[in-house]
Amino acid sequence: MSDRYEKLDQLGQQQGLPQNPDEAILERVKNPCDEQYMVRLVAPEFTSICPVTGQPDFAHLVVDYCPDEWIVESKAFKLFLGSYRNHGDFHEACTTGIGQRLVKEIAPKWLRIGGYWYPRGGIPIDVFYQFGKAPEGLWIPDQGVPPYRGRG
Amino acid sequence: MSDRYEKLDQLGQQQGLPQNPDEAILERVKNPCDEQYMVRLVAPEFTSICPVTGQPDFAHLVVDYCPDEWIVESKAFKLFLGSYRNHGDFHEACTTGIGQRLVKEIAPKWLRIGGYWYPRGGIPIDVFYQFGKAPEGLWIPDQGVPPYRGRG
Amino acid sequence: MSDRYEKLDQLGQQQGLPQNPDEAILERVKNPCDEQYMVRLVAPEFTSICPVTGQPDFAHLVVDYCPDEWIVESKAFKLFLGSYRNHGDFHEACTTGIGQRLVKEIAPKWLRIGGYWYPRGGIPIDVFYQFGKAPEGLWIPDQGVPPYRGRG
Amino acid sequence: MSDRYEKLDQLGQQQGLPQNPDEAILERVKNPCDEQYMVRLVAPEFTSICPVTGQPDFAHLVVDYCPDEWIVESKAFKLFLGSYRNHGDFHEACTTGIGQRLVKEIAPKWLRIGGYWYPRGGIPIDVFYQFGKAPEGLWIPDQGVPPYRGRG
Amino acid sequence: MSDRYEKLDQLGQQQGLPQNPDEAILERVKNPCDEQYMVRLVAPEFTSICPVTGQPDFAHLVVDYCPDEWIVESKAFKLFLGSYRNHGDFHEACTTGIGQRLVKEIAPKWLRIGGYWYPRGGIPIDVFYQFGKAPEGLWIPDQGVPPYRGRG
Amino acid sequence: MSDRYEKLDQLGQQQGLPQNPDEAILERVKNPCDEQYMVRLVAPEFTSICPVTGQPDFAHLVVDYCPDEWIVESKAFKLFLGSYRNHGDFHEACTTGIGQRLVKEIAPKWLRIGGYWYPRGGIPIDVFYQFGKAPEGLWIPDQGVPPYRGRG
Amino acid sequence: MSDRYEKLDQLGQQQGLPQNPDEAILERVKNPCDEQYMVRLVAPEFTSICPVTGQPDFAHLVVDYCPDEWIVESKAFKLFLGSYRNHGDFHEACTTGIGQRLVKEIAPKWLRIGGYWYPRGGIPIDVFYQFGKAPEGLWIPDQGVPPYRGRG
Amino acid sequence: MSDRYEKLDQLGQQQGLPQNPDEAILERVKNPCDEQYMVRLVAPEFTSICPVTGQPDFAHLVVDYCPDEWIVESKAFKLFLGSYRNHGDFHEACTTGIGQRLVKEIAPKWLRIGGYWYPRGGIPIDVFYQFGKAPEGLWIPDQGVPPYRGRG
Amino acid sequence: MSDRYEKLDQLGQQQGLPQNPDEAILERVKNPCDEQYMVRLVAPEFTSICPVTGQPDFAHLVVDYCPDEWIVESKAFKLFLGSYRNHGDFHEACTTGIGQRLVKEIAPKWLRIGGYWYPRGGIPIDVFYQFGKAPEGLWIPDQGVPPYRGRG
Amino acid sequence: MSDRYEKLDQLGQQQGLPQNPDEAILERVKNPCDEQYMVRLVAPEFTSICPVTGQPDFAHLVVDYCPDEWIVESKAFKLFLGSYRNHGDFHEACTTGIGQRLVKEIAPKWLRIGGYWYPRGGIPIDVFYQFGKAPEGLWIPDQGVPPYRGRG
Ligand SMILES: [Ca+2]
Ligand SMILES: [Ca+2]
Ligand SMILES: [Ca+2]
Ligand SMILES: [Ca+2]
Ligand SMILES: [Ca+2]
Ligand SMILES: [Ca+2]
Ligand SMILES: [Ca+2]
Ligand SMILES: [Ca+2]
Ligand SMILES: [Ca+2]
Ligand SMILES: [Ca+2]
Ligand SMILES: [Ca+2]
Ligand SMILES: [Ca+2]
Ligand SMILES: [Ca+2]
Ligand SMILES: [Ca+2]
Ligand SMILES: [Ca+2]
Ligand SMILES: [Ca+2]
Repeated sequence: MSDRYEKLDQLGQQQGLPQNPDEAILERVKNPCDEQYMVRLVAPEFTSICPVTGQPDFAHLVVDYCPDEWIVESKAFKLFLGSYRNHGDFHEACTTGIGQRLVKEIAPKWLRIGGYWYPRGGIPIDVFYQFGKAPEGLWIPDQGVPPYRGRG
Repeated sequence: MSDRYEKLDQLGQQQGLPQNPDEAILERVKNPCDEQYMVRLVAPEFTSICPVTGQPDFAHLVVDYCPDEWIVESKAFKLFLGSYRNHGDFHEACTTGIGQRLVKEIAPKWLRIGGYWYPRGGIPIDVFYQFGKAPEGLWIPDQGVPPYRGRG
Repeated sequence: MSDRYEKLDQLGQQQGLPQNPDEAILERVKNPCDEQYMVRLVAPEFTSICPVTGQPDFAHLVVDYCPDEWIVESKAFKLFLGSYRNHGDFHEACTTGIGQRLVKEIAPKWLRIGGYWYPRGGIPIDVFYQFGKAPEGLWIPDQGVPPYRGRG
Repeated sequence: MSDRYEKLDQLGQQQGLPQNPDEAILERVKNPCDEQYMVRLVAPEFTSICPVTGQPDFAHLVVDYCPDEWIVESKAFKLFLGSYRNHGDFHEACTTGIGQRLVKEIAPKWLRIGGYWYPRGGIPIDVFYQFGKAPEGLWIPDQGVPPYRGRG
Repeated sequence: MSDRYEKLDQLGQQQGLPQNPDEAILERVKNPCDEQYMVRLVAPEFTSICPVTGQPDFAHLVVDYCPDEWIVESKAFKLFLGSYRNHGDFHEACTTGIGQRLVKEIAPKWLRIGGYWYPRGGIPIDVFYQFGKAPEGLWIPDQGVPPYRGRG
Repeated sequence: MSDRYEKLDQLGQQQGLPQNPDEAILERVKNPCDEQYMVRLVAPEFTSICPVTGQPDFAHLVVDYCPDEWIVESKAFKLFLGSYRNHGDFHEACTTGIGQRLVKEIAPKWLRIGGYWYPRGGIPIDVFYQFGKAPEGLWIPDQGVPPYRGRG
Repeated sequence: MSDRYEKLDQLGQQQGLPQNPDEAILERVKNPCDEQYMVRLVAPEFTSICPVTGQPDFAHLVVDYCPDEWIVESKAFKLFLGSYRNHGDFHEACTTGIGQRLVKEIAPKWLRIGGYWYPRGGIPIDVFYQFGKAPEGLWIPDQGVPPYRGRG
Repeated sequence: MSDRYEKLDQLGQQQGLPQNPDEAILERVKNPCDEQYMVRLVAPEFTSICPVTGQPDFAHLVVDYCPDEWIVESKAFKLFLGSYRNHGDFHEACTTGIGQRLVKEIAPKWLRIGGYWYPRGGIPIDVFYQFGKAPEGLWIPDQGVPPYRGRG
Repeated sequence: MSDRYEKLDQLGQQQGLPQNPDEAILERVKNPCDEQYMVRLVAPEFTSICPVTGQPDFAHLVVDYCPDEWIVESKAFKLFLGSYRNHGDFHEACTTGIGQRLVKEIAPKWLRIGGYWYPRGGIPIDVFYQFGKAPEGLWIPDQGVPPYRGRG
Repeated sequence: MSDRYEKLDQLGQQQGLPQNPDEAILERVKNPCDEQYMVRLVAPEFTSICPVTGQPDFAHLVVDYCPDEWIVESKAFKLFLGSYRNHGDFHEACTTGIGQRLVKEIAPKWLRIGGYWYPRGGIPIDVFYQFGKAPEGLWIPDQGVPPYRGRG
């Protein structure tokens, strides 16, 4: 078996994750394409803390944007999302906050984020935020997340 | 417009529903077939009250049985289920209780009930109860209710 | 336009359908294969009359059988099912009756019928009838009809 | 086992639910985001009473809105919906009434509600109500509730 | 068992159904909401007779409309559809005829009907009819009926 | 068994199918409705021959049109499609050719055809052709054929 | 553009397909594995001729087998299936005939074939044939083809 | 707006969650039914830490058990699962560990747990653990979680 | 067995694939239709190399275009895509690069490409590129690829 | 932007992948659980080379096993699968070969592998291999991969 497992005992803590969104660094990469196009990032594993009850909340997030000078580096994006793991805030604030932070870091021509939250008390909340106006001719497919159905 | 709507004002209350399961009458019909077979009843509209919080609970119920002398009358069955509307009990007790009551009233050769409950606190509970041993040669398809998935 | 539409006016009545199940003739064809196998017939368009209310009932039917000397002729089968169009009976009686009639006419080694009825009063009834014992080595897949779900 | 179950006997009643929509209090929370966005609430567990027959009705509800100064508090929203449990009214009136009450309480820039009702007599009714004109640039995905299919 | 089943023998005929569309009475109810909205009715159980062959035809119908002074009474609507049970006409004529009759009876601001017919000879026909122009701001979701796929 | 099977031996050839598209006669029926509407025909069983390899090709076809004076007769349409069974041509040519032939025969106000071809070499081709401009107010739903997915 | 398209005009005929099943050669390949396992072949593009009407029939076929000395060569299998293109026979005979021919050519330890036919007259027929007894320990998943559903 | 939101600032931390699985208390409730049945709990929101990389892992968990003297209290179960939020271990160890802990606390007659993990590096791992032998006559449906599919 | 397998030993290498995108030749065919239409190509089997880690990446690609003088030859298109098998580049660069190369070779009136990538680190990236402006009256259906969901 | 992208130019080759299956090292981890259970690994991204044509083949693989002393290390498993990228062999040989190699390296109590291959020439091949006999009481869910369907 490979050496890299010898130190497993001292791991087991989330040293790889930033402690909160403010500490997370959202790296970017130079846009490799000189024509207009759209990028979609899907994060089916988002989790934060309910500010009222202290219980964990879960969401499925979808981000769409049209890059200008930069694209987001996907591993950094993942770590940024991971920084919400022990951070408490409302569904509406988490979702729009992630969208606003991305806008600040990569200055896209246009961006939107859909936050599809797991039900609490039987009623899920979805949040839809959009920045700027989509450039003419940009192709923007549906995010296509099915609505919550309950059982049956 | 027809006359039968003139008294709508005095309606608006659930006069058609028994007040609780004990008051409900589970009528039966003479089994019209002299060979062995199986009947499935699906109730996607079941609701009762949580005994801890007083909040409503919801479930999707599926009943399978092999009749002997009687079959259940479907409208009476619907009213019996409706009698749980303001009745408080645990998921486990409601589901097994409905199965046991049916067994008492129609004395089937075999019966089972699946209770698929809506999530509370993010974790749904399903309850599966079975009475007797299925007669040899009885055909019993899966109930086929998909598991709860969350969002995404 | 072709000649065969000139008499449309005198059509418009169901002259092609037997008046009731007793009048329907269930023709059969000589089994073209000398080895054991199974046949499935699906009738997604079945309709009969409710004996209590006189309203139409609807069902999706699936028949499975293992032929001996005969197979059912599919057009005759369709007309036989059509003969229930103005016939009133319970779900349980219609479903098992169709199965029993088929057994009488084609004398299969084994047969089953699943009747998946549309909801009345919010609660659908499914009926499952089986004749004889499936021969060893016969391959019998699930009928795979999804359970009723309600809305959402 | 925890103390909080000792009083279960005296529970079993819906003390947590307002007796009717007029008694329900629809609390609101200060909008935590200063940019335009949309919120979706899904209630797969709505139930009211048919004003004609006194039987329970069931619906799957989806509310979309663009907040101005306020967002709806989700637990209060749930209790408001629960207040329809023993209230009798038409599908059209319940659905548009919920939408109009929300408009009055949180004064959104725009709001719509889709009510997807369970079939009665084989024919479900869906109701779609919309308040105001959606602000330019607001992102409004389909509600995406699949149409009723019957069996098969 | 309840008294109401004692006369089952003399039932068994469709006394509840009008003999043809002309005899059916399409009752209406006063529109209970004073704002603009849309209603959807789904009839997964429609059947008529082929005028050429006399064989039964089946369709899944979806009606959308924006009420003005009236809404359609749902049980009357169901009986009206049932009156096509022994009536022969083309797919195109049945579908548009139902739409035109509704327009005449309830005088909606706008109405459309989609008729999704079961395949005959391997090729299904769908018919889409629309009356009037949808009022500005009316919310009209897709009917969302999946296309016919064949097997596999 | 009925007489009509006595000549089965001499059958077994496609005498019912035209030898090629040019020989096929596309009959039409007088449009039975005096208002504007749309018709959809689905042919999940189309097959032609690859002009390069001589191997069979398969497609799922969907035709939408708005009739003027005529509607297409559905059995004739089926035979016309069947005439491609031994005809060789490219996917693009077959699909647009069928559309153009329909336009010539029934002179619709507007027509489109989607050809969804089975994969050859792992990559399916879909072809979308449209004739004329859709009349204002015509209702045109998605064809809704899901994209090819591969396995998994 | 490549030379190989210059002769397209003289193609357009199905020279690559055997004229009928008897002329087709079902080549085989030496079994490359010395342990017991199962192979599944899926043919979603099968077509033959109805012996009664001369019209084309369509089916989705699934073959499962446990090889002994040989496996079937997949291109030869495809050509063998293609040889049914102008061959007329009943659904039951085509399906079991393909299974029996495979048994003769590759002498498997065990084999089964499921034939899922497109609906004619509204009622599809599925045929299930099995040869031999499955060796102990052989893993045989469901064929999992969904049942025909009609519309809606 | 209600008073209970005034202290939101001092919340925002997960005070409600046990720090790790050992600190979590798995409360139980007296089994309310005296006959044999099965309970299913679904947790679509499970998350732990990868012991090698420190990154979060996600899973969808399904627990099935046959109670003896006790049933698990669902809120305590949820908190127990929440205690894995900052705990690092392998997929195999987390899944089997949860199953073993449940066995220790509620001493069921039989129990199983399925752990369906999100993909890391493109390859998801599912873990299936079972305790004891299912009592004769216990009804145990499939967990029915679909396999991972990738895109397309 | 056929001769063409005798040299299998010396195969086993990808002699059929161009070494990289620059070496691939994208052949074209004269557009066989003189009217405006759209073509869709789906490649569910695309794979390239991650430029950072050297690990393989996978994508599901969908190309839509409106031909002018030329259509793309589908086998050449497949080989062109295959040339990315050992080529390393970002998701954004591969997707837009394929689109730009197609534009250069077949000079379409309009073209778009959707790249739906398999998740790396839990977060998939989708890329949407579009060339030119779609001609008026061109029919362009959704690409309809469902969003990534994770497990459950 | 981080330093780790500065050397991108010299990457772009698959240095991380073993050149063929024989060079790949299948590392293992000590089994962390002392009770019997089952592990499932899903590889939706497998690709190899066709030994006849040199073209790439694609498959979706699912491995199930019951560990004894060892579990497979998932990253090593991924690299092992990646080593087939430029390796040519039949579907049957690749699938059973992967199963046999796993058996040799981790000596499980029982193992099976399902290989679900993408269609070539319209007909996909699935391969199912199983090693040993499943221990009594081991829980083994369906792999549940849907069959290939074609289009429509
Ligand atoms: Ca869309
Ligand atoms: Ca529901
Ligand atoms: Ca089953
Ligand atoms: Ca999810
Ligand atoms: Ca099965
Ligand atoms: Ca149906
Ligand atoms: Ca829509
Ligand atoms: Ca198909
Ligand atoms: Ca649409
Ligand atoms: Ca796949
Ligand atoms: Ca199975
Ligand atoms: Ca099962
Ligand atoms: Ca795929
Ligand atoms: Ca669309
Ligand atoms: Ca999930
Ligand atoms: Ca199973």
